[in-house]
Amino acid sequence: MHRTSSISELRKLIAEEKKLGKTIALVPTMGYLHRGHLTLIEKAKQTGSFVVVSIFVNPLQFGPNEDYARYPRDIERDAHLVEEVGVDLLFNPSLEEMYPHPMLTYVEVGQLDKVLCGANRPGHFRGVTTVVSKLFNIVQPDLAFFGQKDYQQYLIIRRMVSDLNLPIEVRGVPIVREEDGLALSSRNVFLTSEQRQEALILSRSLKEAADLIQRGEGSAQKIEEFIRTGITEQSQGVIDYIEVRDADDLSEVTEINRRIVIALAVKFGPTRLIDNIVVEV
Amino acid sequence: MHRTSSISELRKLIAEEKKLGKTIALVPTMGYLHRGHLTLIEKAKQTGSFVVVSIFVNPLQFGPNEDYARYPRDIERDAHLVEEVGVDLLFNPSLEEMYPHPMLTYVEVGQLDKVLCGANRPGHFRGVTTVVSKLFNIVQPDLAFFGQKDYQQYLIIRRMVSDLNLPIEVRGVPIVREEDGLALSSRNVFLTSEQRQEALILSRSLKEAADLIQRGEGSAQKIEEFIRTGITEQSQGVIDYIEVRDADDLSEVTEINRRIVIALAVKFGPTRLIDNIVVEV
Repeated sequence: MHRTSSISELRKLIAEEKKLGKTIALVPTMGYLHRGHLTLIEKAKQTGSFVVVSIFVNPLQFGPNEDYARYPRDIERDAHLVEEVGVDLLFNPSLEEMYPHPMLTYVEVGQLDKVLCGANRPGHFRGVTTVVSKLFNIVQPDLAFFGQKDYQQYLIIRRMVSDLNLPIEVRGVPIVREEDGLALSSRNVFLTSEQRQEALILSRSLKEAADLIQRGEGSAQKIEEFIRTGITEQSQGVIDYIEVRDADDLSEVTEINRRIVIALAVKFGPTRLIDNIVVEV
Repeated sequence: MHRTSSISELRKLIAEEKKLGKTIALVPTMGYLHRGHLTLIEKAKQTGSFVVVSIFVNPLQFGPNEDYARYPRDIERDAHLVEEVGVDLLFNPSLEEMYPHPMLTYVEVGQLDKVLCGANRPGHFRGVTTVVSKLFNIVQPDLAFFGQKDYQQYLIIRRMVSDLNLPIEVRGVPIVREEDGLALSSRNVFLTSEQRQEALILSRSLKEAADLIQRGEGSAQKIEEFIRTGITEQSQGVIDYIEVRDADDLSEVTEINRRIVIALAVKFGPTRLIDNIVVEV
């Protein structure tokens, strides 16, 4: 496995692979890799591409009171993991390599970034789309893989790629869960064992809500209330949002009569978890 | 010369040239070409690259009360011109090809876009950087050529390319002027012969101001006043701005003790002209 923190070295390596006719697949991550990331990597490898994994904790997407400083990092463990699963190139740039001077340029996807996680994390998605633009321009992949746990992020990146004519195919990969249903997240490491136990209500109530819809429940409000009641009664979780939205454009849904996503964000102590489920009716 | 309005056809043509080892040079324009554009094309050809000229009047960069509808267009004349000077590929996409659905994504270069032309044309530079991003992603050039008549635009594009790690070299080409000094512009066609005569005060006063600086004048305010007086006394032009700014970052200048640009925008009737001069001290 190649490993570099240098943009120019990475570009040289990729140019060589392209010359050999290889397609390039990028899996952008913030590191502290878990089975969810490894699934993304596996999907990337299945395409036969030269697989690049980037690890960069991007300060631009953290608010001033968010957990940039405490976000978990373990680059040597990560490097070992990605080497084991057969990644071709690990790119782990420094802050200075990615942001050598103050950034004046931002890439922003309007509308989609104002709801759900965007409503309470102003600037978050702008930070994501800006760094992903940079990574796309640095790596110039043919394919890029994103986890659907960050469903809104996945839609926003797709829209950015389409609006800006980036010659990249964005592939979403379904959420990977623990045996007991908890969606994998680098932030799970911060949960106390009690919080971790309580957090199971998220995936459980999403699953039950999807069943309710399949059995005929058509009111978005009732679904949201059902989940809210479950979380409130069965945990100490502090709800940020629980919303039923159109699965393609995140527009508001009253009557559930199309493909929707139920998305939620709930804080357990200082740790904010997100989860979602897509339901076809 | 190839000519296409299709993004996918353009991509195919460019991929073939890249396979042959050609570098790609892009000259993005809004058409109604004049000698200024032809100079850009000539510079592009001198690099030995496969030269792509795009012609697209981009609605995103015109304000609601600006001249999008009346902006001069003559694509057949332009096509003839670029064929004559040996352009390899003319790309003239339709509105539908460039904006098939409502745009949610914008690329914005902050700070630099708030001053000079940006102050009175809110959203203008955001429109420019967004469409140039699209053109860059469509054409994927190695080199891109911009005229320095739009000095602020040139700096903004350079900054965007640097901030977003676009693998493109941006080259600025000095202003091309008529014999009598008038900076070439597609909008000059709108000037009455009287306005055209009066508009000569712009280049003349810029030139005289540069001479004053070379002879020791160090006060930005005095330079601005000198030009203001000239324009006010010798024309009916309505001044939008006259400003001395740092030539690299457009920051304000009080004492002229570095490389500066004197930039101005003046309306003659409904036609807004811009001009500038860079002065090294």
